[in-house]
Amino acid sequence: MQQLIAHIVKNSSIKPEKLHSIGDFFEARRFKKKELLLQEGQRCHEKFFIVKGCVHLFYLRQNGVEQTIDFAMENWWASDFMAFQDGSIAKFSIRAIEATEVLAISASQQREMLAAMPELNEYFHLVFQRAYAAAQMRVRMTYELSKEDLYQDFSRKYPAFLQRVPQYLMASFLGFTPEYLSEIRKKFAS
Amino acid sequence: MQQLIAHIVKNSSIKPEKLHSIGDFFEARRFKKKELLLQEGQRCHEKFFIVKGCVHLFYLRQNGVEQTIDFAMENWWASDFMAFQDGSIAKFSIRAIEATEVLAISASQQREMLAAMPELNEYFHLVFQRAYAAAQMRVRMTYELSKEDLYQDFSRKYPAFLQRVPQYLMASFLGFTPEYLSEIRKKFAS
Repeated sequence: MQQLIAHIVKNSSIKPEKLHSIGDFFEARRFKKKELLLQEGQRCHEKFFIVKGCVHLFYLRQNGVEQTIDFAMENWWASDFMAFQDGSIAKFSIRAIEATEVLAISASQQREMLAAMPELNEYFHLVFQRAYAAAQMRVRMTYELSKEDLYQDFSRKYPAFLQRVPQYLMASFLGFTPEYLSEIRKKFAS
Repeated sequence: MQQLIAHIVKNSSIKPEKLHSIGDFFEARRFKKKELLLQEGQRCHEKFFIVKGCVHLFYLRQNGVEQTIDFAMENWWASDFMAFQDGSIAKFSIRAIEATEVLAISASQQREMLAAMPELNEYFHLVFQRAYAAAQMRVRMTYELSKEDLYQDFSRKYPAFLQRVPQYLMASFLGFTPEYLSEIRKKFAS
């Protein structure tokens, strides 16, 4: 829990002593590489704070190919947030790319936690404002940049990420074939 | 203010009597059709709750063409949220599509408001979680649907919207030429 508490304290005005019972609401869980945290088509009751590791969010295209639409790593929250807030069927799956440790909280546990510690809304307000702000910028990037430039921009902003994410997932995320991504990487490396 | 108060009460557990001083933190403002609420390149200090009217969010492409990336209408919040949270330079402009009335709040006024009424973080947590959830779904739609299907999906979900948004803005948003959108509309109408 120390890592989540540190993240909350850093991103809000909440004092750590207010958070001593926060661990009661979460469940620590470990996933092996390639294990699913959430499966498309099942009811989504949980969101995940990533303590260690890396996951990708994807859905199954009509043709059976997995389309990766996002990644998350340490100190990020991951879920199908539409399904989480409605308790409805997930339209995304989440899978560990590496051995991954998370803190999981269910929607009902979160309701109890926020009733007991309403200050935490300040933290979640900031977390989601920032996530939404990043989504706005992502839409701009998608319109503005060619796929090659998107890759270059991504490499520049998230070099650590590129080391950790398999090339075929990065290709899926960017909408490339793996072969094309491989060509671009060679081009930028040379 | 009644409309914002009603929206807060509907989307949180906050009692209306807690909100009697909320009006002190906002400024009511009217914009004529085509007037700018926010200009790309200027510092962004404000976010806007739309009481009446409709706006679009856009940026200038390298070639000087305005690229619309989003719309907002009654009971939606609009801003460049990255720039709002950092107090940095806006990467988007916001313009009224119709005569529009908003409640504007600056970042510093919001800090004071949340210090005085921390309960409001519950409302903003939900507002941004929902906005981010919609952004996740939008990314999926962009990968999954052809442009024609995107338009059909949009028409089905937001029929009122299509009546209000000029065709050239909808074309920009969907990445069509206006001519192509016009063809699709005819096709679906027939």
